[in-house]
Amino acid sequence: MSKAHFNTITLIGIGLIGSSLARVIRREGLAERIVISTRSEATLARARELGLGDAYTIDGAEAVNDADLVIISVPVGSSGAVARQIAASLKPGAIVTDVGSTKSSVIAQMQPELPDNVHFIPGHPLAGTEYSGPDAGFAELFTNRWCILTPLEGTDPDALARLRAFWEACGSRLDTMDPVHHDRVLAIVSHLPHLIAYNIVGTASDLEEVTNSEVIKYSASGFRDFTRLAASDPTMWRDVCLHNKDAILEMLARFSEDLASLQRSVRWGDGEALFDLFTRTRAVRRGIIDAGQEIDAPDFGRQKINPS
Amino acid sequence: MSKAHFNTITLIGIGLIGSSLARVIRREGLAERIVISTRSEATLARARELGLGDAYTIDGAEAVNDADLVIISVPVGSSGAVARQIAASLKPGAIVTDVGSTKSSVIAQMQPELPDNVHFIPGHPLAGTEYSGPDAGFAELFTNRWCILTPLEGTDPDALARLRAFWEACGSRLDTMDPVHHDRVLAIVSHLPHLIAYNIVGTASDLEEVTNSEVIKYSASGFRDFTRLAASDPTMWRDVCLHNKDAILEMLARFSEDLASLQRSVRWGDGEALFDLFTRTRAVRRGIIDAGQEIDAPDFGRQKINPS
Repeated sequence: MSKAHFNTITLIGIGLIGSSLARVIRREGLAERIVISTRSEATLARARELGLGDAYTIDGAEAVNDADLVIISVPVGSSGAVARQIAASLKPGAIVTDVGSTKSSVIAQMQPELPDNVHFIPGHPLAGTEYSGPDAGFAELFTNRWCILTPLEGTDPDALARLRAFWEACGSRLDTMDPVHHDRVLAIVSHLPHLIAYNIVGTASDLEEVTNSEVIKYSASGFRDFTRLAASDPTMWRDVCLHNKDAILEMLARFSEDLASLQRSVRWGDGEALFDLFTRTRAVRRGIIDAGQEIDAPDFGRQKINPS
Repeated sequence: MSKAHFNTITLIGIGLIGSSLARVIRREGLAERIVISTRSEATLARARELGLGDAYTIDGAEAVNDADLVIISVPVGSSGAVARQIAASLKPGAIVTDVGSTKSSVIAQMQPELPDNVHFIPGHPLAGTEYSGPDAGFAELFTNRWCILTPLEGTDPDALARLRAFWEACGSRLDTMDPVHHDRVLAIVSHLPHLIAYNIVGTASDLEEVTNSEVIKYSASGFRDFTRLAASDPTMWRDVCLHNKDAILEMLARFSEDLASLQRSVRWGDGEALFDLFTRTRAVRRGIIDAGQEIDAPDFGRQKINPS
């Protein structure tokens, strides 16, 4: 039996990430049994209708009592509550991991609650779409995307190897990182972009002279690109902001400084400064395409999918 | 012969927009003859290799002397120079239009140069990709995209009707607008998004603690969406910034105010304010999808095109 295989995997939370995991676990045969638990009766019922698991329960404690791998996919503000709920029922030797976008806060919330005889290995698959809920998941979500593990001191190497193998079997590329560094990296590559996107969509909606219907109608000239991130799950993103505050505030400060400088270039007609910035940013996209993290089709390939 | 058809159409500038026009004009049979002119010998040679036109010349004056429709597709800062170059050679009754992203400045540059016996009707097709040059164009670029005409006082209704019919035959939806209002609308739906995108990519590149290779590697978690706009043509965007300064500065000020408020919500942990903003922005994307200006496939449909 491969390292990536577990007898029972329990998924706590069955939104976009949880339900994508359920689908890829099934497709790849990574568990004998998938147990699904979530707080909402309606969501649990939907997961059952979709046939995502083998057993379903609202009760987190009951859900984990036979689990060899527990994956917690809930908004990061709920991590502590979930840990408290399941702690006493965990099987000795079980691996407990999460998928949260902030790591220091999740560790601070969960580590004190969990017993010493389980392997708690925090994780974060860098994958998602702007859709949420059990219907939004798909088995290919993790394909070729990075998954960052932030193991704590003294983590059992064998448990770590099993979790790595699991994510690799889901299609991910694996990295390990210090949790504090993770939070700073994510603040710039993910949290700041989402905040900026939410902000510009808010600014555009609030104009008096340009109507919302004009914003919508003419959005293909740039604006619409931001609306995708700004359509992401509000609960998840509220929690990210509250739980990675320091790193986000630092990145926001840097962004605002740079924006003030750019604004000055516009005001004073400094074409050279504008041209320099606009040239150097081009290279970054090329790097992302070359790294296989983006397609090179123009316009995200949208025109190919639906030109009319 | 349909209203959309011309004997000779001259394209001045053969980049993304000009070369897309050449292709759709050919496909739809909108001209007996396509004349192509551009400042750069190399670009003109490439246009010839691609077979985009029927005649090619570096000399703008020569290019327009038999034209019934002249379409100027150059960075907006060059509009005045092009108008000066072609003015004396234009055929009486010719329609002269442009595709620039700013209208007040283009009108101020061109109108004084052009003779009274031609029909100058400024225009702006809201279409583009992050690629530039004659190889980047494609005939479907304008399909279902808006094209805004900003006719001047006293514009001949028949000339206006012919230009509308031409753009409709290219696949566009047509609107007319006051040039000042155009510039304000575009400042929010296009110019500000591009500036913000350029800015965040610049901020991310300048970090000391998070490396550029980390930014690139983990960009799929949000950042990469901004890199598309930030890969747009630097000359075009420098000129837009210099030629729509007032409207851009106003939108930047509003954006920065809102961002300061959002930053305050993060600092003071105001989850309710965050949740409210993140919820109301979701509706805007839904509106854009419903208006047929965006696909509803998750993640811009990227995963469907190239999951690995």
